[in-house]
Amino acid sequence: MNQRRVELILYLVKWTVLASIVGILVGSASAFFLVSLEWATSMQHTYTWLLFLLPFGGALVSYTYWKYGQNASKGNNLIIEQAQGEEESVPFRMAPLVLGGTIITHLFGGSAGREGTAVQMGGAFSELVAKVCKLDKIDRKIILICGISSGFGSVFGTPLAGTIFALEVLAIGMIRHEALFPSFVAACIGNIVTVAWGVGHHPYDIGDVPVFSWLLVMKVVLAAILFGLTSRVFSGLTHWMKRGFVKLFVHPVWRSFVGGVLFVLLTLLIGTRDYTGLGIPLIDQAFDGTVATFAFLMKLFFTALTLGAGYQGGEVTPLFVIGSSLGSTLGSYLDVSIPFLAALGFIGVFCSATSTPIACFIMGIELFGSEAAIYFFLVCIISYVCSGHTGIYTSQQIGVSKR
Amino acid sequence: MNQRRVELILYLVKWTVLASIVGILVGSASAFFLVSLEWATSMQHTYTWLLFLLPFGGALVSYTYWKYGQNASKGNNLIIEQAQGEEESVPFRMAPLVLGGTIITHLFGGSAGREGTAVQMGGAFSELVAKVCKLDKIDRKIILICGISSGFGSVFGTPLAGTIFALEVLAIGMIRHEALFPSFVAACIGNIVTVAWGVGHHPYDIGDVPVFSWLLVMKVVLAAILFGLTSRVFSGLTHWMKRGFVKLFVHPVWRSFVGGVLFVLLTLLIGTRDYTGLGIPLIDQAFDGTVATFAFLMKLFFTALTLGAGYQGGEVTPLFVIGSSLGSTLGSYLDVSIPFLAALGFIGVFCSATSTPIACFIMGIELFGSEAAIYFFLVCIISYVCSGHTGIYTSQQIGVSKR
Repeated sequence: MNQRRVELILYLVKWTVLASIVGILVGSASAFFLVSLEWATSMQHTYTWLLFLLPFGGALVSYTYWKYGQNASKGNNLIIEQAQGEEESVPFRMAPLVLGGTIITHLFGGSAGREGTAVQMGGAFSELVAKVCKLDKIDRKIILICGISSGFGSVFGTPLAGTIFALEVLAIGMIRHEALFPSFVAACIGNIVTVAWGVGHHPYDIGDVPVFSWLLVMKVVLAAILFGLTSRVFSGLTHWMKRGFVKLFVHPVWRSFVGGVLFVLLTLLIGTRDYTGLGIPLIDQAFDGTVATFAFLMKLFFTALTLGAGYQGGEVTPLFVIGSSLGSTLGSYLDVSIPFLAALGFIGVFCSATSTPIACFIMGIELFGSEAAIYFFLVCIISYVCSGHTGIYTSQQIGVSKR
Repeated sequence: MNQRRVELILYLVKWTVLASIVGILVGSASAFFLVSLEWATSMQHTYTWLLFLLPFGGALVSYTYWKYGQNASKGNNLIIEQAQGEEESVPFRMAPLVLGGTIITHLFGGSAGREGTAVQMGGAFSELVAKVCKLDKIDRKIILICGISSGFGSVFGTPLAGTIFALEVLAIGMIRHEALFPSFVAACIGNIVTVAWGVGHHPYDIGDVPVFSWLLVMKVVLAAILFGLTSRVFSGLTHWMKRGFVKLFVHPVWRSFVGGVLFVLLTLLIGTRDYTGLGIPLIDQAFDGTVATFAFLMKLFFTALTLGAGYQGGEVTPLFVIGSSLGSTLGSYLDVSIPFLAALGFIGVFCSATSTPIACFIMGIELFGSEAAIYFFLVCIISYVCSGHTGIYTSQQIGVSKR
């Protein structure tokens, strides 16, 4: 056996072991996180007065981050930078901090997501493995990619999308294949472990895919452009609110407190709790066509406010809510199957906000099957091109200009 | 409306038009090519004595290339280099030459494929469009990518795989997204036009996907490693034969003539015509489990001989034959569903030989549906990692090392 073949076998064995360790740790953390999230959501639904504690909960989390967080407050951007090869340390405390912070956001009714939490837990655990195993610079980069892929894959139940997401999110406009195998192993093991802990994922039904026609294609293109523009509004508004809060309040505790008070007042004003929490019920309503016409705008605003005020949690589930609600609304105006456009919005707005078209296309296939594959691709490409070079992750490098 | 938005709309309109033109031209050429190929194949089956003319047919084609071909004899590598940004000219005569040459190969029973022909026709047509429209250097690169994607997408009926193949084949280890939208439009229009000409594509049935088990995963990994090694043998043998023929015979006409004589003698010796032509019947036999145990090795050898001797045609359909036959053979030895492993081999050997894992994964979904998606991904990644940095295209740059 020649040296190259030995090296190949060593590579495969080494990364099967390392990525599996990451997958087991992160998959278990995701399972615990998803169960806690369900608990927090049901508490919030049962004891509606918990909403009034939101400003205090947010202030507490911001205080904890300020006092003990070190650079953990950089969130997803820290993980993305390290997986790009930066050499700042990812403190392990990031995992409990973001987990606790996100649970508090949801317990008290803030509007946020899950992927940020999963990715940050993934990053913290994989950095731990890197330290214990004394990995060199290149391997550390790869194992951080494993952390991202296993976090994403396990929290959404989409290991293939997770694999590609971790590679595609690092730089706009390209996928580098160097960590393809480790990323895949980590995402699959992560997902298998989460499922093995008895934690399932929400199923969605795209319904019958409409018959092909050029009119349908034009409607889908129009919808995709709107998905792209909506994601721009979301990213822009979130960044604008963040900057605004920073300008108005020097101390992060005040930002979260005031943001929380605003959130509570506005929620009372509109008289519905629909825009608190993850918003999964809105996705269901979007798919069966019962969602309110401007639900996507409301969810967009409340999420931007929550995240702008410094609350913990991700952006992705709210992006799913915004996208599927918008798709549902467009479905009735454009006279296209509602669950079909809701599914396209689900992946389109997310794709546009993260600039990860191939990952989102694959996610579409994992969640909704391959019958509408060509439309998934179309929507991902158009919304990707339309979103410009600014998304929700400010640390994304621009690898290749979009056009 | 600000300037950026105007630029975006202009970009979308411009590339919708240009890529559609390429798609219409290349899709029509593919339709004509596929119909001619069917005619040549049926002629070869009806008049079996045509095989004896193979050396003369090959010599004639090689003479024509030598006398009139200019740099067209560089084949796919020329197109790949130009789409990477080189500034050599792609002569339009490449299209009729490769079309005629491939038809002659198949009419007289040589063992070769189709994608090389489709990609080269695509390249020649898109270069023509670039010249007529006086495109600049960057746009020419993009339109050549459109030529590759529309050729690949239309000849196999897999527009999404074609889109990604054209981006992924240029450099090992990465996908650059810059031409994503044009590549997609060209591939889709190409495929739609081919189908509109009444030319259908062969359907394949993967059967029931086996129930998940770790034993199954290990068997699939083993199979994927063998797919990767088989593709290495194929690439190595083809390059070795090419070099050998060049060393033995200075003039290309003699290479093709002697290679053809060898091909005829060996075909008579083994007493079957199974390994002439595209080999689609072998794929059908592979899927229903009736293919001969070592059919993959025979097809591998006869194709390497045909291409090594300088005959025109692609490598991809023979790679499908080799892969599905090998998968079928492994299916009975490993006690795994035969059509399932045949499908995995179909994409695995091709993936490995071209180093395009994401394109092959998507091709698997387009041809066989998404139920086995995770196994497609697994096979593509493993066979990709196992095949090393040398494949069938010597002009591929190494973008990112595989590991």
